[in-house]
Amino acid sequence: MVALYDDERIDYLLADESMKIIQSPTAFSFSLDAILLAHFAYVPIKRGSILDLCTGNGVIPLLLSRKSQAKITGVEIQERIFHMAERNIEMNGLEDRLEVIHADLNNIGPDLQQSSFDVVTCNPPYFKTPSKNEHNHNEYLTIARHEVYCTLEDVVKACKLYVRPGGKVAMVHRPDRLVDIITLFRKYKLEPKRIQLVYPKKGKEANMLLVEGTRDGKPGLKFLPPLYIYNSDGNYTEEAEGIIYA
Amino acid sequence: MVALYDDERIDYLLADESMKIIQSPTAFSFSLDAILLAHFAYVPIKRGSILDLCTGNGVIPLLLSRKSQAKITGVEIQERIFHMAERNIEMNGLEDRLEVIHADLNNIGPDLQQSSFDVVTCNPPYFKTPSKNEHNHNEYLTIARHEVYCTLEDVVKACKLYVRPGGKVAMVHRPDRLVDIITLFRKYKLEPKRIQLVYPKKGKEANMLLVEGTRDGKPGLKFLPPLYIYNSDGNYTEEAEGIIYA
Repeated sequence: MVALYDDERIDYLLADESMKIIQSPTAFSFSLDAILLAHFAYVPIKRGSILDLCTGNGVIPLLLSRKSQAKITGVEIQERIFHMAERNIEMNGLEDRLEVIHADLNNIGPDLQQSSFDVVTCNPPYFKTPSKNEHNHNEYLTIARHEVYCTLEDVVKACKLYVRPGGKVAMVHRPDRLVDIITLFRKYKLEPKRIQLVYPKKGKEANMLLVEGTRDGKPGLKFLPPLYIYNSDGNYTEEAEGIIYA
Repeated sequence: MVALYDDERIDYLLADESMKIIQSPTAFSFSLDAILLAHFAYVPIKRGSILDLCTGNGVIPLLLSRKSQAKITGVEIQERIFHMAERNIEMNGLEDRLEVIHADLNNIGPDLQQSSFDVVTCNPPYFKTPSKNEHNHNEYLTIARHEVYCTLEDVVKACKLYVRPGGKVAMVHRPDRLVDIITLFRKYKLEPKRIQLVYPKKGKEANMLLVEGTRDGKPGLKFLPPLYIYNSDGNYTEEAEGIIYA
């Protein structure tokens, strides 16, 4: 049995009930964004190494462990949430392939080898520094969602630092930050190669952006077919359902 | 009557047969790209001024003259095609609002006032410098399609030079150049604000990109709903038909 603290609860991560995950409505719950990023990212299937920055409760490493036999390392700055990720790995019996490090991505230290990972994934905080008021409301969620401890540039810089030459960096973010993302990817020699836009439903503007760059890659970007989440009747589209209940 | 040279012919520009256009299969024929750009660009309706760089036979000024009462100026470097544009303006009786200048966009000279246009549109050459072999094949088409006389950076720089602060620059290009476009737009203070991706049909990658930036604008990009051109049966989608036969 695994210990649960405060308002933590155990949810099924996938519809087939094969994986479980500890979540907390006040500390960290995973979102559709993480599921879409895990689905979007190309990963080595049989061997290699993957790094997941801003890993939270480890949802992306857990999901990627179903697609890849690679060793997967998560990095999380918030100690309470880092402990959730640790227990999630243990609860799913994945200690042989998954690990999580409690560290600030701006200063990870010698535990991780630079320029060594085949793939780096990241679902970073989306919003710029919050107001004082938001800080007071809920510190855990504020840190996960806002650029309190790391800016977008910090994140991109860390991705570059740890991915090997020719390796891939995959990120999920909001479309309104695309210009910043592309500018920073280029600055840190992560050439954008694939983008997929996610639309809540037909006729609406995109509300999510999946992007993948290759370290030291040649220019040449592809836009994948758009992904729609909901039909006009409010149910998941067949494609979204296929990803979410895979 | 208007004079026609070589293999030039007169086509209807729009399905309602209200406008005609001189084209030439060996010198310049307009494409769907121009129609989509003219549809995508926001233009002042009642007054103001619009500049169309790389105007070719003037197809974009002709199309925009239906959406806007603004004064529209085209710039074309190839003399033979410039003359086609001149005759197109005359043939449609639009000399009072449309004009075309025979000039290199890298050196337009004092005819045009810098930082003065409300909107600048451009359907630039898409491809990098062609091989010697392509040059020999057809010089007119090579210049229209390849970065022979102007690079993408030259185009963006010229857009910036002539658009007024707060004015808009709208461009059509290939999605694989998005990273270059965004990097150059930012470099020249044209903040990307709207992007629409065009897909040939469902399930395919995007093959066209419409982008609009605002000179000295604040960051904040929106991705419009994607535009599909063909249904699976090979006919135009309702949306594409609405634009093409508007």
